[in-house]
Amino acid sequence: MGSIGIVSPQAMHFAEPLRLQSGAAIGDYTLMYETYGTLNADKSNAVLICHALNASHHVAGHYADQPKSAGWWDNMVGPGKPVDTDRFFVIGVNNLGSCFGSTGPMHTNPATGKPYGATFPVVTVEDWVAAQALLADRLGIECFAAVMGGSLGGMQALAWSIMFPERLRHCIVIASTPKLSAQNIAFNDVARQAILTDPDYRGGDFYEHGVVPKNGLKVARMVGHITYLSNDDMAEKFGRKLRNAAERNDYKFDFGIDFEIESYLRYQGDKFSEYFDANTYLLITKALDYFDPAREHGGNLAKALENTQAQYLVASFSTDWRFSPERSREIVEALLANRRKVTYAEIDAPHGHDAFLLEDVRYMNIVRAYFQRIAADLTLRSDLAFIAHWVGDGAHVLDVGCGDGAMLRYLEQAKRCTGYGVEIADDKVLESTQRGISVIQHDMEQGLGLFADDAFDVVLCLSSLQMMQHVEARLRDIVRVGKEAIVSFPNFAYWPHRAALLKGRMPVSRTLPYQWFDTPNLRYATIYDFKDLAEKCGLEVLEYVALAEGKPVSFLPNLRGSLAVFRLRKRDLVSKA
Amino acid sequence: MGSIGIVSPQAMHFAEPLRLQSGAAIGDYTLMYETYGTLNADKSNAVLICHALNASHHVAGHYADQPKSAGWWDNMVGPGKPVDTDRFFVIGVNNLGSCFGSTGPMHTNPATGKPYGATFPVVTVEDWVAAQALLADRLGIECFAAVMGGSLGGMQALAWSIMFPERLRHCIVIASTPKLSAQNIAFNDVARQAILTDPDYRGGDFYEHGVVPKNGLKVARMVGHITYLSNDDMAEKFGRKLRNAAERNDYKFDFGIDFEIESYLRYQGDKFSEYFDANTYLLITKALDYFDPAREHGGNLAKALENTQAQYLVASFSTDWRFSPERSREIVEALLANRRKVTYAEIDAPHGHDAFLLEDVRYMNIVRAYFQRIAADLTLRSDLAFIAHWVGDGAHVLDVGCGDGAMLRYLEQAKRCTGYGVEIADDKVLESTQRGISVIQHDMEQGLGLFADDAFDVVLCLSSLQMMQHVEARLRDIVRVGKEAIVSFPNFAYWPHRAALLKGRMPVSRTLPYQWFDTPNLRYATIYDFKDLAEKCGLEVLEYVALAEGKPVSFLPNLRGSLAVFRLRKRDLVSKA
Repeated sequence: MGSIGIVSPQAMHFAEPLRLQSGAAIGDYTLMYETYGTLNADKSNAVLICHALNASHHVAGHYADQPKSAGWWDNMVGPGKPVDTDRFFVIGVNNLGSCFGSTGPMHTNPATGKPYGATFPVVTVEDWVAAQALLADRLGIECFAAVMGGSLGGMQALAWSIMFPERLRHCIVIASTPKLSAQNIAFNDVARQAILTDPDYRGGDFYEHGVVPKNGLKVARMVGHITYLSNDDMAEKFGRKLRNAAERNDYKFDFGIDFEIESYLRYQGDKFSEYFDANTYLLITKALDYFDPAREHGGNLAKALENTQAQYLVASFSTDWRFSPERSREIVEALLANRRKVTYAEIDAPHGHDAFLLEDVRYMNIVRAYFQRIAADLTLRSDLAFIAHWVGDGAHVLDVGCGDGAMLRYLEQAKRCTGYGVEIADDKVLESTQRGISVIQHDMEQGLGLFADDAFDVVLCLSSLQMMQHVEARLRDIVRVGKEAIVSFPNFAYWPHRAALLKGRMPVSRTLPYQWFDTPNLRYATIYDFKDLAEKCGLEVLEYVALAEGKPVSFLPNLRGSLAVFRLRKRDLVSKA
Repeated sequence: MGSIGIVSPQAMHFAEPLRLQSGAAIGDYTLMYETYGTLNADKSNAVLICHALNASHHVAGHYADQPKSAGWWDNMVGPGKPVDTDRFFVIGVNNLGSCFGSTGPMHTNPATGKPYGATFPVVTVEDWVAAQALLADRLGIECFAAVMGGSLGGMQALAWSIMFPERLRHCIVIASTPKLSAQNIAFNDVARQAILTDPDYRGGDFYEHGVVPKNGLKVARMVGHITYLSNDDMAEKFGRKLRNAAERNDYKFDFGIDFEIESYLRYQGDKFSEYFDANTYLLITKALDYFDPAREHGGNLAKALENTQAQYLVASFSTDWRFSPERSREIVEALLANRRKVTYAEIDAPHGHDAFLLEDVRYMNIVRAYFQRIAADLTLRSDLAFIAHWVGDGAHVLDVGCGDGAMLRYLEQAKRCTGYGVEIADDKVLESTQRGISVIQHDMEQGLGLFADDAFDVVLCLSSLQMMQHVEARLRDIVRVGKEAIVSFPNFAYWPHRAALLKGRMPVSRTLPYQWFDTPNLRYATIYDFKDLAEKCGLEVLEYVALAEGKPVSFLPNLRGSLAVFRLRKRDLVSKA
């Protein structure tokens, strides 16, 4: 587990103006971004990381000339880290209006030739997401494996799942909220007032005057910083310790610094005021205030999330009083109301809101486990993709034992296929329906009598034939209704199964996950067994392959492949061809 | 239950410099104060109310020319109110360094002829209490019935009980804390930084420049105000309501006011900045930060409270996150460790820290009940005072059945008497010892053989003779050891007792609080019965009186007096005289 190492920011320029929620537009803008890891062939392993108030596109790694310039989520993103750059292609992007490279108030407004200053249009979370989507287009990413963020970044992830439901498979919302509370807004407004009333702010046009509203920014940051820490954590770290307590354990009786907490906060404020832009601070607090996806739905968050398709990971921290666990539970409740797949972790950590940026074993483990699940989904998807490459564009397909409908949905989306799924299990029928495919609830053991001869271009029977009692009869059914068939089953000769048998046990593995007494798999076949049976039923084996973790195995396939897949065609069709 | 009506502030000038905790001194200063109600004859009904951050001596009532100028605790203090000005003499005092009349930064420093400004010495809670004690001296109040305050005012009450243990009988600490947390200090420092960095602050010498650091004060007040309200209360009152929502239910996409909470807070900030002094704000936040009575005792609050003598009422509010109930419990724990009498109320109220200023039935009822108890103590004290006026200055006294020692202590303090108490009950012996009187644990039923003839000027036997089995023998004992005796007992002819007997029940009332089956009172006597017995034992009745609620009853005493008190002298002494 190490750092991603040296990274470099990249710039993407957009000439086409972006229409903003306010009605204003911003033209001729640039987004700064960084990427880590490698985009896979089907561009399915991309993860977008959205940043919070004072962060940027620099998520992980460090810059060549600055060994101390670690990215803001370097503990989360990297090789072997929870968001594992060995498996995922991670993108960090700097939002519009920021002061870290993407077009913002300090940049020149091409219309006036002067810095935007306070005339930079007010941008919203939705505006940022819209811009991020344009960047994804440019990078050729149609659908993210996950969009992820903490705090304000979590809001962006949530907005992604609402605005572009089909463009992310997982949405990870950490230490966030579906909208700011009055108290949250109040703290933001204190910060804004501190900046706006600093005479050096000069109505936002301070750049040309060579001044910066440092005092206002400092106060803004101090008050913000208090809300990031927990009361207990502050008490433990600072308590009432006096600064330079060793020197002189007494009060100073002036308005300088007595306590360590004062020293710490003023230092944080000073540091912040030296690198952060005042106009950006105003913009970002406003984006926070405005975020409220339920607003257009009469305050009904469940309704706002109605069209989402992603699966969710929501996490909160027990001592976070800025966006408390209660606020995350609002999101979870709305997702449950929509029967979305959602995992919720409420992590007992002492560090308040800032916890989302810090090391915490339970927190890191949850994110790691969730991303391992996403990676497993990716493997599944590569199986789907592999099988799909045998299906012709626009084919009419019957998917026998369609399960949750993922394959058919994939074919519909990726290959403009049409067709039906056949499934017996109630929960799978429901899932397939939710996925939007046409599913016929039917026991395949009763045959496929309801379909006409040669009704389909391709019949799929993936990992379900082994559950049939009369394999030969079913195979003949498939031959009747389809011109081609793709059949897969767990390869019983897969070597871990053999190893188990050598130990005197029935095999249990990922593709054969059942014990002997509860297995729904009634028949077992090796690749060679099946080849014989297929030919006996009038099917020509066009190709066959053994897949291990979604990738074809060419060396000793009958030993190493855990899943066997056959591409078959009716013999008469073969002879005609 | 009404307002105290029209009130007037008064000024008390002090020429003698006050030495401050910082080592500095402030000379030639004035304290503004107000009083409500009437000080009783023995000056035992005075209540001092200490104010918090932005309040003053104007606690209750209103000024003649300003009908809307109600005092800051007008709901708490007034005729028939929890702190009932029909029974108590209430004093509000403005603290040093304030901007409401007492000497503060805006006043002229006699040494320079210019306003103090930032050179006004930093004052502490203890400095304020010291000054308040000097005011009490001037008003002739040796001991307050209660010192009371909320928030910073509660700190002053707590400091009173530590600094002047004998000068208050009750200490009422509401919504307070034994010391600020790091988070509390952090918020204060944000406020200070906002003021100190406002260019109009001009190092504190803004008075002569005709400017006021309004922006800094405004931000300071806004951040302070957030901490006074509860998150829930803010959510309920303001939520995400837009300002002028009726007009146009949309965001404005600028840095003006979108939400009602912004409008409210900015208004509060502006209003505050128009009447409050910036230097005072700095001083008061510093006094808050510095308060920490446990500091001199290695952080041990119990030790800091070791020498206290007061009884305590501590109250906190469930939604107060500035000084949470946990902080009040720290005080309660330290008091319990010292076995102090303490009542603690944790009030479930939605209004955060501000709750201590607001109407809440449970809160008001607790304070009311506690003050009724104080009033009952006052009645007891007036009994003591009445009886004490029969005891000569410097008399040597035996108090038979001395109970908690209150009477003997009173005689020692008010009349420089000496002597002993006799008491059988373990808990009473302990209490008497804690009160500092000399107590002999002894069963009076065994006689007073351990005391010589005529050893005492006066023997007291107050409300205990009726518990003796051999009343005559005990009365003869008293005659032997003392020259005079004062004997009291519940008057069995007291009319509520008679009324109860008429109804066929044994009497139960305040002076005869037991049921017939558990009463320790073995003998009952009417005033006439006792007079006969006393004379039989060689005692001349010099005076007798029936007391009702501590006041003598002259009309039909045997019917209306609940307590009968006899002043007796040995017959031979009478005849010699």
